[in-house]
This record gives sequence, structure tokens and C-alpha cells, in this order.
Amino acid sequence: VSQLGGDEGKHAFVLKTAKGTRDYNPKQMAIREKVFNIIISCFKRHGAETIDTPVFELKETLTGKYGEDSKLIYDLKDQGGELLSLRYDLTVPFARYLAMNKITNIKRYHIAKVYRRDNPAMTRGRYREFYQCDFDIAGQYDAMIADAECLKIVYEILNELDLGDFRIKVNDRRILDGMFAVCGVPDEKFRTICSTVDKLDKMAWEDVKKEMVNEKGLSEDVGDRIGEYVSMQGGQDLAERLLQDRKLSQNKQACAGLTDMKLLFSYLELFQVTDKVVFDLSLARGLDYYTGVIYEAILSQTIPALVSTPAEQNGADEAGVNVGSVAGGGRYDGLVGMFDPKGRKVPCVGVSIGIERIFSIMEQKAEASSEKVRTTETQVLVASAQKNLLEERLKLTNALWNEGIKAEVLYKKNPKLLSQLQHCEETGIPLVAILGEQELKDGVVKLRNVVSREEVDVPRADLS
Amino acid sequence: VSQLGGDEGKHAFVLKTAKGTRDYNPKQMAIREKVFNIIISCFKRHGAETIDTPVFELKETLTGKYGEDSKLIYDLKDQGGELLSLRYDLTVPFARYLAMNKITNIKRYHIAKVYRRDNPAMTRGRYREFYQCDFDIAGQYDAMIADAECLKIVYEILNELDLGDFRIKVNDRRILDGMFAVCGVPDEKFRTICSTVDKLDKMAWEDVKKEMVNEKGLSEDVGDRIGEYVSMQGGQDLAERLLQDRKLSQNKQACAGLTDMKLLFSYLELFQVTDKVVFDLSLARGLDYYTGVIYEAILSQTIPALVSTPAEQNGADEAGVNVGSVAGGGRYDGLVGMFDPKGRKVPCVGVSIGIERIFSIMEQKAEASSEKVRTTETQVLVASAQKNLLEERLKLTNALWNEGIKAEVLYKKNPKLLSQLQHCEETGIPLVAILGEQELKDGVVKLRNVVSREEVDVPRADLS
Repeated sequence: VSQLGGDEGKHAFVLKTAKGTRDYNPKQMAIREKVFNIIISCFKRHGAETIDTPVFELKETLTGKYGEDSKLIYDLKDQGGELLSLRYDLTVPFARYLAMNKITNIKRYHIAKVYRRDNPAMTRGRYREFYQCDFDIAGQYDAMIADAECLKIVYEILNELDLGDFRIKVNDRRILDGMFAVCGVPDEKFRTICSTVDKLDKMAWEDVKKEMVNEKGLSEDVGDRIGEYVSMQGGQDLAERLLQDRKLSQNKQACAGLTDMKLLFSYLELFQVTDKVVFDLSLARGLDYYTGVIYEAILSQTIPALVSTPAEQNGADEAGVNVGSVAGGGRYDGLVGMFDPKGRKVPCVGVSIGIERIFSIMEQKAEASSEKVRTTETQVLVASAQKNLLEERLKLTNALWNEGIKAEVLYKKNPKLLSQLQHCEETGIPLVAILGEQELKDGVVKLRNVVSREEVDVPRADLS
Repeated sequence: VSQLGGDEGKHAFVLKTAKGTRDYNPKQMAIREKVFNIIISCFKRHGAETIDTPVFELKETLTGKYGEDSKLIYDLKDQGGELLSLRYDLTVPFARYLAMNKITNIKRYHIAKVYRRDNPAMTRGRYREFYQCDFDIAGQYDAMIADAECLKIVYEILNELDLGDFRIKVNDRRILDGMFAVCGVPDEKFRTICSTVDKLDKMAWEDVKKEMVNEKGLSEDVGDRIGEYVSMQGGQDLAERLLQDRKLSQNKQACAGLTDMKLLFSYLELFQVTDKVVFDLSLARGLDYYTGVIYEAILSQTIPALVSTPAEQNGADEAGVNVGSVAGGGRYDGLVGMFDPKGRKVPCVGVSIGIERIFSIMEQKAEASSEKVRTTETQVLVASAQKNLLEERLKLTNALWNEGIKAEVLYKKNPKLLSQLQHCEETGIPLVAILGEQELKDGVVKLRNVVSREEVDVPRADLS
């Protein structure tokens, strides 16, 4: 952060970006491009289209969709005209888009920035302006097929990004609700108990139970009953076992969720991803709009700088997923209906990749690696060791551009050969085309490999 | 625009995007992707890196950079903390980035949305949220080489986008200032007379002169003298002739500009772009920060829906360029210094491609063409004519994904063959892989070409 003016008075001009935001320098952009390419290729492999929506929406479009997180929404100043807010996620604009255009089925991805007036934790990849990277399937289909494809996509992306081992936890809102009901949680406390359960991945059970009893007013008994369930993890077998559970099997919601969970695992088996997927009754997820299956992917490997400090541990991170997780999502069958004049529902299931955290990890990997990240794709620098050859350099550069070759030339009349070679080394340009009086007379170009220093004379005619 | 609720009361919920903004549907996104690919390839061919900056800046960063256009800046609501504004262009954030990071030379492109509370004219591609697509070269270099490369880039991009014939007008702020001086315009009126001259491409000279005399208070004489100059168009020859002009040759600024113009044309000759470039003394451009060469590209072909209505003719369009133009830019050597604590200058020259207008043209071309725009890249749909083969379909789809083949499957247990084929026809999927009991027994897949209806049996082993 630099200060303009330098005086200590109030007119000192602060040269910085807004709190919680950052610039991307060329190296960070190169990494970002690489990550996006992997993710977009995967979305396209699964037949997705893409859409885009404006960065701001009518304020009322966002109203009542985010529960108490609404306080984190950025509003625009009333400068006359409509009241506007910056988008908080891509899911609500997607639902608005579907309702407005009366679209009843689509498979789309959307990669764009969203805005939250949250407490930034930028070293861990948590910003006020950050990318979301969403893939969603909308439409009335047979159960669990689209849901299974979303999990397959998370699996493929995390594999291809090469971030080490990972796990994908799955659960179902209906199973959670059924479990709360049979444990004796009053209906009106389902959501708040849900968010307490959601803290199990960073708090010990003892503390979670304390919160339930002391802060949320559950009895010890009820807490203990919940404790038994939320410690359960497994696969298809666990779903089957719980379908036989004396209490859960009496609850309609829970049975529907468990039956779907069994079906989901049978599809995940066909998609060959069950080695990473765990049915985990402690997974709750924060957002209100989920109605069925929910999931979250967590990297096994802990990256030091990405470990949260205790002060930060209580918040949900940038993708609305918990600290440590890199993807999350679920089924939300009611959201589009909130926008439809007649309340017509469009069932949806989707996943959001926590791209900022992935950028942070990739940047640290690049930092630690000896390999240099190139920020341009230039193949050849047109150079000269002699004076007064600017016109010849420009002519050759022009010929290369016309042939589609990525070429640069220094914007100096008589640059030193050394500074031309240094530019290549600094930016990773592999070849220099050197022009001199002799080469011009012979109708050739001396092509030098910057690293090996090998040189060959290439006829001008072959270059362009 | 749909109404939620439907009652006429004030609580009717309006389902729309904010004024002057739009969603991009999948077809528009496919076109946008195509245009971006052409432009980005060109920027990369010229060795550019890319950066990104936040969508909002500290309000004070934008203050005093846009003259009276400042009233069009979107401010964020004061919700505690810093006062923020949405970026108005990419040039000021670029200058802030350079000063903040003490960068003295870089060649970068930046493609991102900017925001102006302007009067939208959306049928002509003029929005309140719109893309800018900027390429800039910063650094202390020898005269006119980087400037010439910017023009070469405009030339390449407009050629490759295949938008028909075009012209690139060039002029120089120093020539304009010198011309105003020798014509007898008082110093303090240079900028305002400049913006009147800027209207010559949509107003007759008579009307421009009237504005100068009646509204801006010039004498008839001074107006007539300006009129003589601004009617001049030519190439290197015109620059040479004006260097001999009795009055202009007495003005230092004008001479510097004209000498550089000659040099520029000599480089443009080497870059083989002079067939489209015109030295035009009537080109003025609105923005205050230009200090040297300025330019603007205009398509020759008029596209009906893109012709402005009289009411809209007085504004500058989305890229800050005049109605009809698709690219513009120039040299701005003073802007970065405004951000530097010690006022250190970083000379810059750049170009902005008016991408929204280009999108509009491309969309209309696609509309008029018989060729269908595909919005997905799916190569094959895995289908079945028989019941109870969902698991087999999923298994084969999974195998194709694992091989990197773009494949889809309908999310239905027993879809009709007809609806599976219809999906292919609607979305342009070229191949269907049809599974049946017989094929499963034989270990083959029936691969059908959707258009020609040709079928071949392919062994399963060859597919995955």
C-alpha cells in the first residue's frame, strides 16, 4: 500500500484496491487460465452450455433468498432509478433467469465473480470479490441420475487439478430432517440445529453438543441421540442399515432420502467414483434452499498457509462451503418456483467449485516449484546485434505475425543484443531470430535456441 | 418482463434484469466465445500478458479522471468502511495497477465488464454493463513503434472478425492543439472545441461551425480557419505537406505531432496496413487523458439495426468511441503519473475494441445465416431403443467420459428413441451410440450418424 502525497493529513491518497479484493498479476492470470481450462473442459465433456448474467440484480431479486447472510449483500447507491445489489452467488440469478425465460430444462455452467461483505481472509483464498464456478442441471428427470453426474464432475475436476487425495461427503436434507424429528428436535429448530451440526468438521462433538444444549435449548437426551446418528459414516450399506433403523424407518422423509441415497450409490458405482464418496450423516451445509441430496469435497492434504486461524473458524467460506472444502452443492427443487408467478417448480441440482481456494493452492505449488510460470506465449523474438536494422526487424516481425507466429520485437531503434537475449530469458521466449547485414545479404535469418544457444541459418522464404 | 403476483398494487414483483443490462443466453455465449478467441489469439500473437482488477475501486481512484462523464459512475452504497465505485473503464484501473506495483513497462490485455449510468440503446449494442477489451503497451520506448503495433492489432482483429471493409482514422492531440492555436482558439477552449470537432462524423460542417460560434463563442473567422484544416484527409503525404504549412509549421506542438505522424506511417507501411489507415484532421476523441496519437476504426458497411436514432446521436458509445466505430485508442503519457506519489510518468499507448457492437453484428449475422449455432460440444449421445438399459447407458457414458469424449445421456430410465434422436437434432450432436440387448450380447455399440442416418457396429473395446 503506497501513500500519495505523503503528508499525514486527511488528504493523503491511498493507492490500494478495495478491502477484500485483489488484482491478478500476469502470473496469477496464467494459473487462473490453466485452472479454468481444466474445469471448462470437464463441463463441456458433460454437455453443458454456458450463460452469463449481470453483476448486479434488482435488490428485490436477492431479497429473502439467503436468510441471515443477506446482511453481507453489497447494495448500490440510490442514484435515481432502480435499487440494485451486487450478486451474492450465481444460483439465485440462475433461478431468476430460468423463471424469466420460462426455461424448464437446461444443463449450464457459469463462471463469474460474486460479492460478499464478509470478513476477508485473503491468505486462505477468502475474498469479498471472488469467482464462483457453477454447474447445474435443471429439469424434471428420474431420480438421482443428474445428482450422480454432479458428483462425477467433482471427482473428475479434483483428479485433473492434481490437488492430492480428497473425499466427497454426501448426505440428504430429508435424512437430516427425519433424523432431527425422530431425535425429538422441535420443527422450528431444524435449521438452527442443522447449522450447529455443520460445525462438526472443525469442532469436537462435545462442543457441538454444548452449543445445542446451552445455546439452542435442546435437552441432553436429544443431543445424545443426535450424536449417535451424526457419527455414522459409510456407503450404500449404511443407507440400507438405516432403512432398517427402528426409529428412522418410521419417518417418511428419512425413508425417501435413504432410498434415494441407495440409488445414488448404485449410479456412483457405475461412474466408478465410490472410492472417494462417503455417506456422512454429519454433513449439513448452510444454505436454506437445499431440499435433497447435499455434498461437499474436502482435500486430504493440508496446505499450511490455508489452515484457518481459530478466529476465522466459525464462518462459511467463499463458496458457501466449510473451511477446508473445495467444492459443494446439492439439490434445490424449490428456488425457481420462488420466481415463477404461478409458483411452478423446476427441480435443480448443482455443484459449485471453490475456485479461489484452488487458485491459492496452485499459486503456492507454482511458488514452491522450480519450473517458471510463463505469462506470454511468444515463440520468437526478432532481434539484431547491429545498428540501424529497426526497419528490417519490423518487416520480419510483421511477416511472422502474418503467418500466425507469436512474435515480439523490442520497441527500440538500436537495442543491445544482450538486452534482447535477457528479455527472452526473463519471459521464457524459446527462440531468437537474429538479423545482421550478412544474413540480409544471404537472404537468411539466424535462428538461435535461447537455452541451448544452438544456431541455424534459415532461409527467409521458409520463415514466412 | 413478467410480473409476479399479477396485482396492480405496488408489491407486484418485476422479473427482469436491471435497466441497461442483459443476460447472455447460451447462443449469445457461443458467439461471445468465438469473438473473444479471435481477439485473445491476436493479443497473444503480439506477446501480451493479461491482468485482472476488481470490479470496484476506491471512489477516489476514479475521481478527476473522466471530466464531466464522472456523473455516469455507479457508486456503491455506504454500508460502513470504504467508499467504492464500479469501474468506468479499464484504463484508469490499469494506471492505478502500474503505479501501485511500480511497473514501468508491460504489454498487457484486459477483457472485463465496465459500468456507466448512461442512456442505454441496447438494440445498437449500447449497455450500462458492457465488455471492454483493452490492449496497452506501457514503457519508455522509441517513438511510434508501439503505436504502430496497436494499429496493426486493430487491423488484424477487424480482418479476422470478417466484418467487411473498414477504415482506421488517425490524428494526434498535439496536431489538434497546434491547429486550434494557429486558428486563434483561446487555450482554455481547446477541450470544448475538441469535443465539437469530434461530432463531425455525424453532423454536417455547417452545424459543427454553428455550435462553435453560437454555443462556444468562437468568431466566424476562427471557425472558418478550423474548417479548412478539419476537412483534410490523407496519408504520409499530408503530414509532409502540413509540415510546410505557413502557420502550422510555426507551432512546436503541431510540428512534433506531424513529425511523429510521418514516422508512424513509415512503420505502418512496414506492417502493410496503410491501405486502411487515414490521417484525418477531424478525428478528436472525447477522453481528456490522451496526449499524442489517437485513432478510431469505423466499419464501412452499415448494419440497419445498428444505425443510431437521432436522439442517440449526441453521445459517445460504450467504448468511449463515436457511433459507428468499433475500436479506438491512443497515447496517454500522463495518466500513470497522476497515481504516482512523485508524479513519475509511465508513457502508455493502447487500444480498446468495441466488443459489444461486434457482438451485436455477429448475432445478427448468425440470425440471418442458415447455419445453426451450436451451444454445446457434445460428440455423442448414448441412447437405447429398449427398456431397462439405464445402467448400460450410464456405464458406456462413463467409459466415454473417462476417454475424454464429450458425451451425454438422457436422465430418464426409459426414454423413447425418438426423444433421444430429437435431442441430438435440436442441439446438433452428430453421433448416437445405440445400445440394445443384441449389441450387448455381441459386445458392440451401434454408432449412428444423426444427419446421414448411416449406422456401423463398433466393438465396445474400440470405444473406450
